[in-house]
Amino acid sequence: MPSSPDEHHTMPTDDQESIVEANQRFYDAHEARDAEAMFAIWAHDDQVHCTHPGWATLLGDSDVQASWRSILDGPGRNQFILTNVVARVDGDAGWVSCDENIVAPGGTTTVAALNVFAKTADGWLLTAHHGSPVFSQHPKDV
Amino acid sequence: MPSSPDEHHTMPTDDQESIVEANQRFYDAHEARDAEAMFAIWAHDDQVHCTHPGWATLLGDSDVQASWRSILDGPGRNQFILTNVVARVDGDAGWVSCDENIVAPGGTTTVAALNVFAKTADGWLLTAHHGSPVFSQHPKDV
Repeated sequence: MPSSPDEHHTMPTDDQESIVEANQRFYDAHEARDAEAMFAIWAHDDQVHCTHPGWATLLGDSDVQASWRSILDGPGRNQFILTNVVARVDGDAGWVSCDENIVAPGGTTTVAALNVFAKTADGWLLTAHHGSPVFSQHPKDV
Repeated sequence: MPSSPDEHHTMPTDDQESIVEANQRFYDAHEARDAEAMFAIWAHDDQVHCTHPGWATLLGDSDVQASWRSILDGPGRNQFILTNVVARVDGDAGWVSCDENIVAPGGTTTVAALNVFAKTADGWLLTAHHGSPVFSQHPKDV
């Protein structure tokens, strides 16, 4: 169906749709515990950033992918339900902000996430993932 | 002094240096509790993301700046010592990863941070700040 001329101006751009789709593939790979699909989402160089909730930041492909291999090989079995998904694109890079509502055997939790992508010959690849626990009360001013 | 032909190839690019400088201005503004300097660092539109450590994510200029005004008007007096500063630029956007080592009257803490910038006519502006507490032990796999 051709796009309508009265299409609303706040419709997402193709690039915004593409990074939202890439973002979803990241969580699908995690939920499926599929390391190959996870690695296909990421850029592979020394300038990648990954902060798992509560962890110190990991930098560089080697440490980041090792962490994912350990996590995906581990006992966790989680469902990720994303809310508040917002995408921003500035040229050849962009980010997706979302809340990861995680349903696990032991209960549920929410992680606030920021995922940054770069546009490459292989599509939009993840250069940074940062997830953080959301406390029920705001911590002291830091 | 002209650049030397044997300049090392892994020297940071001008853009990387620029976003590292912009990143430092962000922390200088926080440390000085200077709201005008803080607002000058940020992009001002509906697609900005700010996650203070432990908070739910704030989206959009209005909520983000209101949070900073409250924080900077509050009682906190912190020194920020940055370590593990790494910058990545992809075209007109880039990010800085760093550890915020925070010295406060009540003690010290470390926050893992990811700050995303976009290149604009007004220079590199912050489109996303995400800070998260670093636990002493890794939490359960999430």
